[in-house]
Amino acid sequence: MARIDRASTATDQRESGRQKVISTIRKSGQIARIDIAQKTGVSPATVTSITSELLKAGLIEEIAPDSKPDSRRGRPRVALKIRGDAHIVAGLKVANRNVMVALIDFEGNTVSEYTAALPASKLSPDDMAGFIETSVRAAAQEADMDVSQISGLGIGVAGIIDAPRGFVYWSPSMTERNVGLRDLVEARLPLPVFIDNDANLVAMAEQLFGMGKTVSDFIVVTIEHGVGMGIVIDNALYRGTRGCGAEFGHTKVHLDGALCRCGQRGCLEAYVADYALLREASITGSLSGQDPENATLDMLFRKAKSGDTTAQSIFHRAGRMFAMGLANIVNIFDPELIILSGERMQFDYLYADEVLEAMKAAVIQVDAPLPEVRIHKWGDLMWAKGAAAFAMDGVTDLAIRKITDAA
Amino acid sequence: MARIDRASTATDQRESGRQKVISTIRKSGQIARIDIAQKTGVSPATVTSITSELLKAGLIEEIAPDSKPDSRRGRPRVALKIRGDAHIVAGLKVANRNVMVALIDFEGNTVSEYTAALPASKLSPDDMAGFIETSVRAAAQEADMDVSQISGLGIGVAGIIDAPRGFVYWSPSMTERNVGLRDLVEARLPLPVFIDNDANLVAMAEQLFGMGKTVSDFIVVTIEHGVGMGIVIDNALYRGTRGCGAEFGHTKVHLDGALCRCGQRGCLEAYVADYALLREASITGSLSGQDPENATLDMLFRKAKSGDTTAQSIFHRAGRMFAMGLANIVNIFDPELIILSGERMQFDYLYADEVLEAMKAAVIQVDAPLPEVRIHKWGDLMWAKGAAAFAMDGVTDLAIRKITDAA
Repeated sequence: MARIDRASTATDQRESGRQKVISTIRKSGQIARIDIAQKTGVSPATVTSITSELLKAGLIEEIAPDSKPDSRRGRPRVALKIRGDAHIVAGLKVANRNVMVALIDFEGNTVSEYTAALPASKLSPDDMAGFIETSVRAAAQEADMDVSQISGLGIGVAGIIDAPRGFVYWSPSMTERNVGLRDLVEARLPLPVFIDNDANLVAMAEQLFGMGKTVSDFIVVTIEHGVGMGIVIDNALYRGTRGCGAEFGHTKVHLDGALCRCGQRGCLEAYVADYALLREASITGSLSGQDPENATLDMLFRKAKSGDTTAQSIFHRAGRMFAMGLANIVNIFDPELIILSGERMQFDYLYADEVLEAMKAAVIQVDAPLPEVRIHKWGDLMWAKGAAAFAMDGVTDLAIRKITDAA
Repeated sequence: MARIDRASTATDQRESGRQKVISTIRKSGQIARIDIAQKTGVSPATVTSITSELLKAGLIEEIAPDSKPDSRRGRPRVALKIRGDAHIVAGLKVANRNVMVALIDFEGNTVSEYTAALPASKLSPDDMAGFIETSVRAAAQEADMDVSQISGLGIGVAGIIDAPRGFVYWSPSMTERNVGLRDLVEARLPLPVFIDNDANLVAMAEQLFGMGKTVSDFIVVTIEHGVGMGIVIDNALYRGTRGCGAEFGHTKVHLDGALCRCGQRGCLEAYVADYALLREASITGSLSGQDPENATLDMLFRKAKSGDTTAQSIFHRAGRMFAMGLANIVNIFDPELIILSGERMQFDYLYADEVLEAMKAAVIQVDAPLPEVRIHKWGDLMWAKGAAAFAMDGVTDLAIRKITDAA
């Protein structure tokens, strides 16, 4: 199966021209050739030749000229758009208790959704690959399709992933370290497979479908059972040299601080994640009478809202630690936009006014507006759509590579 | 005077081709046209046309063909190199007590150096611009040149700088905030002026002349009176949206922690910079008998080395806090290389084995080698050379812009 080596694609100017053109069409919805040239800096002649290749490959299509004639040329301008049925791609998110699959068309429209409960919270690599295979096949069947009609599969997993190698250094969802999960899944399914850290894929979903659509530099922070981050710099996901970047949850906010589930001390996650707050609640007896196995953040949150000062103090510290972590991100990246996302956004302790105020107070003070902080409470499906967006990107690269190789 | 708007240059593919070609020639020392095409992905025909423009503009020159004939073409290959005397540029670093100027040729060779003591540690914007003017004129005179023979001036200043606007939000060297320092200096000197944060310019010097020459993603941390950082991602300096990124020294390492000279609490700088250590020494009386005004880190360091346990404990905590800060950088950026630089590198408390061990212990653990940490103890001249490198970059952009506009 063709492998995508991003380092070498970058050296091919013609290929990068094609990528620029198609991503401009994607971002614009529909756009005339001359406007593509203007937006990309690619010459009009080259845009014409590239778009004719993309049309031939079926990746884009022309749409009926609008009624207004182009004043400069005196004839109606034909616009181009992504051809929705060019490809169907699948995205799969491995969550704490289940697996979600989304099928989307090449324009990003959701074709179908599918959810299956995981048999255990940690699986062996083979069982994980098998469960992924079964889920994708079931999702295809539910949509009256055969998996062979799906052009690519994106998988989002929590943990530390080397995406270009499809390699999982560590994931809370698997019993083993150092798993070549992409190869295991590709051996079972007739599709190119793309794997990345789940927070990276949320960032990609924000970039393609969400709040990041018009922003070139932004950061997504996700809070679920752990704390994740996705970094978009200059319209591209930043992954670090070994695929171990953006580990916001494991930046240290206190020397020799609270014990984290990663085994180290003082990680941000050890102050703001579910288990951290429930650990505090169990020490103070804030949820006494409650079976610790079934104690949930929801219960603790309701206690705080109903005036329990101990519960309030637990959330208060979490909020202040989170504010400090966010301020550090601003002081380092100075992004245009920070998007807070994930299941925990249903509770406001991480983005209450006082948290954002505390963040502002810890940011370098200059006479310029601060980065915008936006809250995006999206559901589980969006994680799977993020994974599908990653597959769409990969499938587009493969299609362009095919054109380039043929040229 | 022509202004460089990096956002708009990026949209011109032809211009970016020229930049790729010249930077490849610069990095390679000397290189044949066909190898430029291979390295850049620009087509051989385009390389030939671009290099002929660059030759005509006098930015590069051909060097005598080597004796080995090109086996594919049967004739000797002509190599290209940067034309050293194409331009002389000046770099100026505003340090705590003095100003250093370096004149370099277009190949990066130092033509002359000049140092002048600042009349005060903080100057008004006008006095600062005046002192910069005087220093540059004196440096030119010492080199038997007229300032009009200098093609550009790069200035490195500590503080928070919006480089594209040449605007100083805040600098410890100036009495006022929000100073359009570039315009003030350009009004006094017949040169294009480029201003940036000094640590960014150290990163640029490492990229052009130093340890970063062959590395696409690296981070420079400088420790002098403050703590600075320069981030190079994908061969380009990363500055953030408002020019306020890379403020490593003001990331918080302790909630409600030690007071920093910026007025906030818990900044890394407040644990590792000179003033932080001397503040601790004054509390414990570690330098008693010493006039506090003249107490230096050197004295405290010698005390620690001679067995004073209080002095040792001061450095020990600084080292541990610094290790935690570095680990956070690794967990976020996962760079290929971290370069520790600056005057404080003469003391080993910030990079002793136990500091690097503590950093490694706080980094996400995966079965892949950690980023390399290298120590670069360079002198004051290199800061000025970094500023000159920035000017060289700007002058190259202007020269290419001129070719593009003429084409």
